Amino acid sequence: MRIEIVAVGTELLLGQIADTNSAWLGDRLASAGVTSHFHQAVGDNHERITLAFRTALARSDGIIVCGGLGPTQDDITREAIADVMGVELVRDQSIVDLITEFFGSRGRTMSANNLRQADVPVGATLIPQVMGTAPGLICPLGHKVIYAVPGVPHEMAEMFDRGILPDLRERMAEAGEEAVIVSRVLRTWGASESGLAEALQGRIDVLDADDDDADGVPAGSVTLAFLASGIEGIKVRITARAATLAEGTALLDREEKAVREAIEIQLGDIVFGIDDESMEVAVAAELRARGITLGVAESLTGGLIASRLVNVPGASAWFRGGVVAYHEQVKFDLLGVPVGPVVSEAAAVAMAEGVCRATGSDVGLGITGVAGPEDQEGVAPGSVFVGLALPGVATLTSELHLPGDRERVRQYGAISALDLLRRALIELEF
Amino acid sequence: MRIEIVAVGTELLLGQIADTNSAWLGDRLASAGVTSHFHQAVGDNHERITLAFRTALARSDGIIVCGGLGPTQDDITREAIADVMGVELVRDQSIVDLITEFFGSRGRTMSANNLRQADVPVGATLIPQVMGTAPGLICPLGHKVIYAVPGVPHEMAEMFDRGILPDLRERMAEAGEEAVIVSRVLRTWGASESGLAEALQGRIDVLDADDDDADGVPAGSVTLAFLASGIEGIKVRITARAATLAEGTALLDREEKAVREAIEIQLGDIVFGIDDESMEVAVAAELRARGITLGVAESLTGGLIASRLVNVPGASAWFRGGVVAYHEQVKFDLLGVPVGPVVSEAAAVAMAEGVCRATGSDVGLGITGVAGPEDQEGVAPGSVFVGLALPGVATLTSELHLPGDRERVRQYGAISALDLLRRALIELEF
Repeated sequence: MRIEIVAVGTELLLGQIADTNSAWLGDRLASAGVTSHFHQAVGDNHERITLAFRTALARSDGIIVCGGLGPTQDDITREAIADVMGVELVRDQSIVDLITEFFGSRGRTMSANNLRQADVPVGATLIPQVMGTAPGLICPLGHKVIYAVPGVPHEMAEMFDRGILPDLRERMAEAGEEAVIVSRVLRTWGASESGLAEALQGRIDVLDADDDDADGVPAGSVTLAFLASGIEGIKVRITARAATLAEGTALLDREEKAVREAIEIQLGDIVFGIDDESMEVAVAAELRARGITLGVAESLTGGLIASRLVNVPGASAWFRGGVVAYHEQVKFDLLGVPVGPVVSEAAAVAMAEGVCRATGSDVGLGITGVAGPEDQEGVAPGSVFVGLALPGVATLTSELHLPGDRERVRQYGAISALDLLRRALIELEF
Repeated sequence: MRIEIVAVGTELLLGQIADTNSAWLGDRLASAGVTSHFHQAVGDNHERITLAFRTALARSDGIIVCGGLGPTQDDITREAIADVMGVELVRDQSIVDLITEFFGSRGRTMSANNLRQADVPVGATLIPQVMGTAPGLICPLGHKVIYAVPGVPHEMAEMFDRGILPDLRERMAEAGEEAVIVSRVLRTWGASESGLAEALQGRIDVLDADDDDADGVPAGSVTLAFLASGIEGIKVRITARAATLAEGTALLDREEKAVREAIEIQLGDIVFGIDDESMEVAVAAELRARGITLGVAESLTGGLIASRLVNVPGASAWFRGGVVAYHEQVKFDLLGVPVGPVVSEAAAVAMAEGVCRATGSDVGLGITGVAGPEDQEGVAPGSVFVGLALPGVATLTSELHLPGDRERVRQYGAISALDLLRRALIELEF
């Protein structure tokens, strides 16, 4: 079953709002084992909406169209569907009554336009509204189908789960397709996309092999993909197709283990999280597990590390606070950095140790460097020094040379410093 | 000139990442007077990418394709373009050299896969990379064109402005589409979209009037639009169409003046910037003009305000630094906040004054509040107190009640605090 998503609305084409519905639907369809090969967005224009529908029907088995079901004159999805189906629109009295009551019960006057939402293409069935006024539609075209839902995200989501998914499952069962697709993302920091691809080439070859006996998994049922995510590192996505959710999850578990081993052997401990787990979530878990607190002293990153850390729910259990020591005098006064060059390893060490004292933390992270575009103290942009003060051992340091503009040097510096902390906590067995 | 945007990547179809590139490009194309009637997203599959290209070429004058230019085996945009053009790919030695040097200069080993990025369809011209390794492509097909750029947003954006937009403008000039469309965005903080629309209804009526004599401007040549931009406020976009850039700019200047007056009269000083000028840039300009320095004490926002400020080039001239006082003990020790409730107006005042002393700044901004989801000290989530210590006057305070989750409360809190500072500097005539 191949479903194409068509998002309707000129505001999408103009970039005035981002199309989050299509991403949500894509995720939901994939989890249900429904394939989606194409998405389209199209403006509020009758001719172009029907062209988008015809294009989609030619290359997919069905369409979910979001948007254009509202009461105003530029909401023309109903008309376009009727046109493609080759049928008339008829006004449905039960919806007229519902809409009239909806306005009446809220004490609002209803403009006549609102009744356009009661127009239904002949042959379509309704997905009743439970939140707003525009019902959804299930419109058969031979063996194919157009589902229409409102563009308001929470109305769309509710109607998809209640009205579309059960209908899709029925169609898939009829067609003998009952597979589930599940995926999991491993998040890494510190390797290049090509380095990861090389480390995992062996796994990819095994998964691609036609010989099912090599690994007991049918060829093509598990796949790996790489997603470069800029300042958040590189993601490795494992996708599995199986007959049931339990089988799919078992395939993911097995492949995750194999991928982690292959990465660990060739690239070390670079996997910091799964799915939505950010670097700060990984750091938080390590700190919380050890019952230790953190303070950060930031020059280069100017508060960026602290602001990422406080976004982890429950941060107050392990995060004490920090000093943004942008001017050198603040480094000297609040952190006890010795007067001298402040873009240096020695300054990073003093910042890390100083912020432990200043905030009363067990662990201190200090970062200084040059964001650019100009040199500072004769040091080139992208040069970064990180200090990490841990109880009972000498303060660790790391010198980095990062690419990019001001903003990227800061972002890379922040995640690199957090990764240093994460790895030190794990490797030093604190 | 009708340009279709085609986003390539299975992760888009699966909803693992939202397609922000298409929205960004849609906005940029609209500002340049380029029409975009359709967007598509397609997965990493040769047959389906070529089908998407052929579909787009049949209904548009050109394509901007984002993504699939990386080094891995599932990056196949180059091959698909060559297929649709009916030409071969040839390896470009100048790109081979650049990629080799890119890895060499970073001391990283280069896998052979990376050289796939040097493959160019015969007849295409290059948009050189300045950030990563994959160049962009301009691929002519008769009178139509395919532009290919990487999917990494900042690389895509940079390449669009530098490589695609000038080429598009040339093609439009050749096609006799020489009307210039220019736009300018006024950025506001503190009003609702409907409030702004009401304040500007008079202007909209004048602009829509068919009677050109009313304002000397042809009807429809200047338009206003409102863009709700969440944590960055509401934007008012003025768009003007004219025969020349000079005429367009004159129309914008005139309309900007009228819009500012209408807003000022009804809503006060809520316009803080133009186009890309963020709130921190506005604050920086006021501080720099007065030659005074700033320190910030953050609890609720955890470093977010400081990290926004340091992203303004030249921040070291006026930003001293700050204290992230997340734990109450840090507020007491480093900022001299009196022991007692720390989510209070009194604490915000003490933080603002304390950070002036601690960092040696002329002006101190303090912010405390509850991000949620739980109450703190009996204070509800979304409650925020801001203190502003200015030389020679009593410390100002502001109490806010902000909507949204943790992240949004922090973001709204940060921009609200900066806006308080901006307005105080202007209104108190410091």
